[in-house]
Amino acid sequence: MSQSSRISPLGVGDIYRAAFQSGLLAENAKSFLVHDLSWMKSRINEFQDAFPKAKHALAIKANPLVKVLRVAVECGFGLEAASIEEVALATAAGCPANRIVFDSPAKTHQEIEETLRRGVVLNIDNLTELARVESILGTSHPAAPIGLRINTEVGAGRISQTSVAGTGSKFGVSISRERHEIVAAFSRNPWLNAIHTHVGSQGCGLHLLVDAIAKVEQLRLEVQAATRRAIPNVNIGGGLPAAYLQGDTPPTPREYADALRSRVPSLFRPDVTLFTEFGRAIQANSGAAFSRIESVRPLGNGEQLVVIHLGADLLLRPVYRSDDWKHEFLCLDPSGDVIVDDVEPTTIAGPLCFAGDILGRGVPLPRPREGDWIAICDTGAYTLSMWSRHCNRAIPAVLGYDEGSVTMLRNAETPQDIVRMWS
Amino acid sequence: MSQSSRISPLGVGDIYRAAFQSGLLAENAKSFLVHDLSWMKSRINEFQDAFPKAKHALAIKANPLVKVLRVAVECGFGLEAASIEEVALATAAGCPANRIVFDSPAKTHQEIEETLRRGVVLNIDNLTELARVESILGTSHPAAPIGLRINTEVGAGRISQTSVAGTGSKFGVSISRERHEIVAAFSRNPWLNAIHTHVGSQGCGLHLLVDAIAKVEQLRLEVQAATRRAIPNVNIGGGLPAAYLQGDTPPTPREYADALRSRVPSLFRPDVTLFTEFGRAIQANSGAAFSRIESVRPLGNGEQLVVIHLGADLLLRPVYRSDDWKHEFLCLDPSGDVIVDDVEPTTIAGPLCFAGDILGRGVPLPRPREGDWIAICDTGAYTLSMWSRHCNRAIPAVLGYDEGSVTMLRNAETPQDIVRMWS
Repeated sequence: MSQSSRISPLGVGDIYRAAFQSGLLAENAKSFLVHDLSWMKSRINEFQDAFPKAKHALAIKANPLVKVLRVAVECGFGLEAASIEEVALATAAGCPANRIVFDSPAKTHQEIEETLRRGVVLNIDNLTELARVESILGTSHPAAPIGLRINTEVGAGRISQTSVAGTGSKFGVSISRERHEIVAAFSRNPWLNAIHTHVGSQGCGLHLLVDAIAKVEQLRLEVQAATRRAIPNVNIGGGLPAAYLQGDTPPTPREYADALRSRVPSLFRPDVTLFTEFGRAIQANSGAAFSRIESVRPLGNGEQLVVIHLGADLLLRPVYRSDDWKHEFLCLDPSGDVIVDDVEPTTIAGPLCFAGDILGRGVPLPRPREGDWIAICDTGAYTLSMWSRHCNRAIPAVLGYDEGSVTMLRNAETPQDIVRMWS
Repeated sequence: MSQSSRISPLGVGDIYRAAFQSGLLAENAKSFLVHDLSWMKSRINEFQDAFPKAKHALAIKANPLVKVLRVAVECGFGLEAASIEEVALATAAGCPANRIVFDSPAKTHQEIEETLRRGVVLNIDNLTELARVESILGTSHPAAPIGLRINTEVGAGRISQTSVAGTGSKFGVSISRERHEIVAAFSRNPWLNAIHTHVGSQGCGLHLLVDAIAKVEQLRLEVQAATRRAIPNVNIGGGLPAAYLQGDTPPTPREYADALRSRVPSLFRPDVTLFTEFGRAIQANSGAAFSRIESVRPLGNGEQLVVIHLGADLLLRPVYRSDDWKHEFLCLDPSGDVIVDDVEPTTIAGPLCFAGDILGRGVPLPRPREGDWIAICDTGAYTLSMWSRHCNRAIPAVLGYDEGSVTMLRNAETPQDIVRMWS
């Protein structure tokens, strides 16, 4: 899996060359991003094959480019929105309302009204929000599924900041402490017909994911028994990790489905509709970022320093939480050939006027030269989508790569765009 | 100092009320930001009084709003740009080219050419860049000062990520290792007429700042002796900390100036022009952020959970590096009165679909209710300017407050702005 789930170094070189040959990049482009749409579609197909009857919604927050979202919708995916703005993105990408899943831990009264009116699928985050939805719906019964998010309290994964199911998590209704309220909620609200959970993302192993879903399924069966009606919809969220480093072997979609099928077979009965919300597992390996090397010089600590044009603006987590978030780097000569000379420990610095803007220290890299390029691998998720304005550098062009053909997914920003941004 | 350098709780309440009474906020505004322009002007005046002959440039990256920058320019400040895009922001704010200081550790050939042609003040970051400037300038001599950034290697401050002057820093030319090259650079380039240094920002004490500048001044005198010409410009950067918590007593501008005057008197001779690049020390305490409380509920860990509408999008560092970056919170009732009931330990969570989006745990807050407001104090620097797109929530309206009168500094984004952003 670790090999096939990531674009190979040769493949990254091919993408680089195709980007330049497309004529879509400015001659003096300092950096650019590429999303490999064919790669993404093949990942989407893997999930569709592994969960053939599920209703999948791709997490918009992993990569919000409208043209990328549109590809997912054309493949039959829905879209998961973490904010009302992301509902607008889903609509712009051509997603029908009943395939948009609206999750947010801070939905306003107005946002709930609007999404219910439009027939969007809603997951209620907590009991306060439940009361709000009850007051809005009264006796009416929306067509789209309405779920309640359960905190399964299975404990935190390796990365505490992305583990959502510990005690003290801000998400969901507690499966232990609020179990009575959960059953009561389903008893009094016939429109409440989905159970939703989401354990975490990168850093959570298969066992943690499956344990959580088993607990939620047990709860669903208990709720069905108590309410004497079917709760036909189970949303298992996302949370499947992606491979970032050589040797990473995250579970495949098939392995995840098989583990669930074996441990929680009732989920796969014909009267249950499974919903998913994968993001990182589909997008991370579909993207790569490229920067020209602006300068190379020796550092006082014995390493060489390589300064590039992407830093904590694109790679916020790798900079601010470098122990948890790592990417691999390749060094390309201007023609796109991967340089494989003897490697030396290298500090890769971003371009921000901020001392902490360091993408890696001690990175084994061949001694690159000014004008060579650094490829940052696996940047398709939670990179551009988290873009930070620190130092106000323009977002570079984002290209789509599909079986060798290249299109513009988003034009590079100009200095005038930045002026408009702050005016 | 700690009292007078921060807006009082009552003052925050006044700002809140003025914002609502202005009619500039949408009726259903979930959050908004305010920049107190009168406060900012009084801070600017403090620096001008403490360093009466200096050429001050406000760091744009602390707060890039064009209308905010314009106020600084009208007060006689220049603007410091960390990117070519920030040079465009400075121009849009009406700053003349010779008062724009362009610092960046990743300047391209084209950016250097453009800024030199326009007469912008340039600080060269490293020897690679020096060679580039030499090749561009040839025998010509620009009118605006050109400086060389020196890494004084005085060691790191409390916050390693914002300490720029340690060994292994990506910034500047090493004062020890590259001393010979520094002297040679000044010897062969008559246009090189400024020494630039910058020690860090929040987390660096007065001694560290003064030590660094003393070392750089010694270097300047040495360079003058070696080259037999005047190096009349000294840029001491920024780096003065701001107060964020009760009891914080950062040095005042006057204290900083007095310490420099006593330790490095030659800096204040009439033939020396001092340049500064303060940002945080002017802007941080000038801003406050306000969010309606969307929900309040008990957490499993015994604390109450308060969910608000600003999180890691606005407060990236307080979320990702919570040990280093802290803000104080106030709880306001809808009329703007500060609630001072018995406090309880509270978890304040942001609105992002991200478990780590926690602004504080164990924060002593009176038990607030839905519809009350949280004020986040001292958000005038490195908050909005670092805005992250994670979950794609719209940037709220930013209002200017000036002696009680309120203006719009930046309209709230709409969902359609977000769609345009990613199309």
